[in-house]
Amino acid sequence: MSESVLISHIKNYLTISKEEIDGILHYFDLHSYNKKETLVHAKKRCDKLFFVEKGCLQLYFIDDFGTKKTSQFAIENWWLSDFLAFQNQMPSDFYIETVENSKVSSITFSNYQELLDKFPKMEKYFRSIYETAYGSALLRLKYINSLSKEEMYIQFRDHFPEFVQRVPQYLLASFLGLTPEYLSEIKRKLLS
Amino acid sequence: MSESVLISHIKNYLTISKEEIDGILHYFDLHSYNKKETLVHAKKRCDKLFFVEKGCLQLYFIDDFGTKKTSQFAIENWWLSDFLAFQNQMPSDFYIETVENSKVSSITFSNYQELLDKFPKMEKYFRSIYETAYGSALLRLKYINSLSKEEMYIQFRDHFPEFVQRVPQYLLASFLGLTPEYLSEIKRKLLS
Repeated sequence: MSESVLISHIKNYLTISKEEIDGILHYFDLHSYNKKETLVHAKKRCDKLFFVEKGCLQLYFIDDFGTKKTSQFAIENWWLSDFLAFQNQMPSDFYIETVENSKVSSITFSNYQELLDKFPKMEKYFRSIYETAYGSALLRLKYINSLSKEEMYIQFRDHFPEFVQRVPQYLLASFLGLTPEYLSEIKRKLLS
Repeated sequence: MSESVLISHIKNYLTISKEEIDGILHYFDLHSYNKKETLVHAKKRCDKLFFVEKGCLQLYFIDDFGTKKTSQFAIENWWLSDFLAFQNQMPSDFYIETVENSKVSSITFSNYQELLDKFPKMEKYFRSIYETAYGSALLRLKYINSLSKEEMYIQFRDHFPEFVQRVPQYLLASFLGLTPEYLSEIKRKLLS
């Protein structure tokens, strides 16, 4: 059997024994989902962290006009949740949905606590993950506050070319805070 | 001698002995700064994490028009850095400056590594800090993408009333992505 994607990812940060691998995996569930399945509902308790082994998830909310707005994507090797709601075991501010058919490892809040108690070295793993994620979020806030919509798209396309190919364009537009029509216009302009 | 603010904060997350406290503090420097001192320069290596014991720091950048734009504040008990630049030991995307006279604990990158090696329980502390910070950043991205400028201000004022009193209004405007004039107009309107 090939190694779990999650374990390969953890091994980028920690040295773990065969025994520890089995112990760690014991706390996770691995599920396959179809495209557009909802994993977390806004206003309901957010009880899980999700790790994408294959596919793509989005974190979104629905604004006052009923429009779905994407706040974050997660592809292979990314974690996703409403981390604040998860940490405080409060109702979620967001929905989480599969963008493609996906394979996702998840861990419940109580299993997460037990995992961290039993394998304290996993604190280092999650500390590193969140440190990067928070740093990236601050940089994203900078871009939002300094780049034009066109520059945001170019920046994103140049940093994540595979991603731009892969994600439906209306979702990419939502993530960049554009209408799909405006994104098409920018792309047309850049090609001409 | 009264207990260090940093240690009191760590004790919210961990149980630590007197001996561990001394060991942990050994890796930190505590400095007093005047208002408007620069702690980190953009485009220079970002070698420190900062913890505010007293006062207020801001993380900002200068846009193409030479305008300072505030991306993040930190008051007492908050950590601040360009976390991505720090983690990768790369040039910083931001400046860090004191907003008020401040007392700040800082730790260098090499001391941070040593601290985490020597006191692995500190991984749990930083994991919790970053988990909250990242969750809050996602929520902030949601607000930016869903609230009007006026609603952003009201939201912020209601959640952080002390903060709104304390921070110079031109900085608050910068943080909310407004001109100082527009912020004055919103405040006048809400009072009328």
